[in-house]
Amino acid sequence: MNEFDLIARYFTWEDSFSSSDKNSSNIIKSVGDDAAVLALAPNQQLVTSIDTLVSGVHFPKNTLAFDIGYKALAVNLSDLAAMGAKPEWFTLALTLPEINHEWLGEFSRGLKTLANEAGIALVGGDTTSGPLAISIQVMGSVEAGKALYRCGAKQGDRIYVTGTLGDSALGLASIQNRVELTNDDAVLCEQRLNCPTPRLKESTLIKDFASACIDVSDGLLQDLTHILNQSNLSDPELTLGAEIDLSKIPLSEPLKRIDKQQSLEFALTGGDDYELLFTIPESLETQFLEVAKVSGYVGEYINENAFSCIGTITNEKGIVDSNNNSLNTTGFNHFS
Amino acid sequence: MNEFDLIARYFTWEDSFSSSDKNSSNIIKSVGDDAAVLALAPNQQLVTSIDTLVSGVHFPKNTLAFDIGYKALAVNLSDLAAMGAKPEWFTLALTLPEINHEWLGEFSRGLKTLANEAGIALVGGDTTSGPLAISIQVMGSVEAGKALYRCGAKQGDRIYVTGTLGDSALGLASIQNRVELTNDDAVLCEQRLNCPTPRLKESTLIKDFASACIDVSDGLLQDLTHILNQSNLSDPELTLGAEIDLSKIPLSEPLKRIDKQQSLEFALTGGDDYELLFTIPESLETQFLEVAKVSGYVGEYINENAFSCIGTITNEKGIVDSNNNSLNTTGFNHFS
Repeated sequence: MNEFDLIARYFTWEDSFSSSDKNSSNIIKSVGDDAAVLALAPNQQLVTSIDTLVSGVHFPKNTLAFDIGYKALAVNLSDLAAMGAKPEWFTLALTLPEINHEWLGEFSRGLKTLANEAGIALVGGDTTSGPLAISIQVMGSVEAGKALYRCGAKQGDRIYVTGTLGDSALGLASIQNRVELTNDDAVLCEQRLNCPTPRLKESTLIKDFASACIDVSDGLLQDLTHILNQSNLSDPELTLGAEIDLSKIPLSEPLKRIDKQQSLEFALTGGDDYELLFTIPESLETQFLEVAKVSGYVGEYINENAFSCIGTITNEKGIVDSNNNSLNTTGFNHFS
Repeated sequence: MNEFDLIARYFTWEDSFSSSDKNSSNIIKSVGDDAAVLALAPNQQLVTSIDTLVSGVHFPKNTLAFDIGYKALAVNLSDLAAMGAKPEWFTLALTLPEINHEWLGEFSRGLKTLANEAGIALVGGDTTSGPLAISIQVMGSVEAGKALYRCGAKQGDRIYVTGTLGDSALGLASIQNRVELTNDDAVLCEQRLNCPTPRLKESTLIKDFASACIDVSDGLLQDLTHILNQSNLSDPELTLGAEIDLSKIPLSEPLKRIDKQQSLEFALTGGDDYELLFTIPESLETQFLEVAKVSGYVGEYINENAFSCIGTITNEKGIVDSNNNSLNTTGFNHFS
């Protein structure tokens, strides 16, 4: 099987968005030429991000192929969600040690499952031989001038997160036998690690209110630091920091059942959650919560907190808890 | 050094196109947020392609870091050239086994050299640890409806290539000690292998005349087969093939100095040339050649053939030489 057969067999999805009515009008040329040709609607800007998953680095070597396909797209869609962008198209660069049909079938199925859920079309890619790695580039659209950035937070803004934090870190600890969980809790947390949900629906609601937004991939404290640093850059006089109410950090039931100190450490510094962390100006908070309530954002999380307010932007550099104790921002560092 | 320092040090180019007057107006948000935000000019379509280079697969492990950076972008720009698109932006997913500052400095310099030549801006990326691999996604623009495809060739169209063919294959054979070359010839051919020139300038000229176009990455015969197959798909009655005049295949001086049979094999089936292969309707050929002449497309090649006519599209399936002998289309297959 050469790479053309491989693309035809596993990555040409007749019944997916790549040929559906919904998206086909903006795909002028899809998989099969030197490049894809795509049409952005008038007054829309292109939002694009690339992320790579390497076997043994970003996922354990024995991770299910379905989950690898799902997660490779999920982490990229999460970046679009953090920008307030609508998913449109993606490309896939797949490096494989061998042609394993069972693996490819499952990988393709995981990828396609989330692609269909998110309404994003696979429009091109590259397959090559080498150590297992997946690079996905997602492309989305946003109304001109309406993208959400990491910068933009102001003193007094309320700090929110979606979902619950630390589940992925606990899932990884469970896989690596560093903690002991009940079977149900282990399954839940490993599911959150392996098949994270990109918060696209939440993003469409957040984007009309948030002053800054990021997805939590490196850990809450580190990603909050990115928001603070980027927001401070806009004015040399700014010394923005944050006060976090640790009792408000949303924890899932499995997290609540482990040692309290450890659960906080997972929630504050664990990577791979892919929740959205965002700031809402105080003046918009009531309206934001009203819209969130009307939209019925409950029930699809491990706990029912769709959005949790965990603190406030201050004008003193650094991140502290409610007792003014400094919180250590050590998150996940790929090269540490 | 974490990944943020790494990006700041090696991939934030103040003096490059990412902040120049020329391109900055269409870059709304560059490196440093969850995604880049980009503005396509009115009536332009997005052209995008992704390609991965893996160490030990796409380049020998001892290849210079400068050359790896240069080539990783070149092979992607070549795809834009094949579509008749203008380079705009690219993202870089870099997987590194370790932080080696000397290597990173040279890799960055190679990448930036070609980025500046081509007028393309680095707008985002991902760095991670793992076996050395580079995925680059290029994005270009083309006037709506004006992209060049692999399909579109018609019976009687003249078959053209840019530059010379087989140099990269000869360069690789030289590195692998399968042939013996003079030092000058080896340097020339290895340069073609390691730092191929994407034919962007030629593309701007070709795009107003060509009926089909592809870049020669898998070998002339295999890439010509792609044009024939794609062109035949448009109509079940079509049985397009090609007749190639082997005496017209453009060969560089180093190729002319080796065994004739071997030189033809390199030129017909060697991969990695990144020349453009395209078809010109007979009715436009005179005008095309006149424009090519006026544009002064000579002198920058190993030989002086900017464009060579090597054959004609026929209505009999398969590829034959002038004596009607079938030509074997075995090109470079990544999984063979």
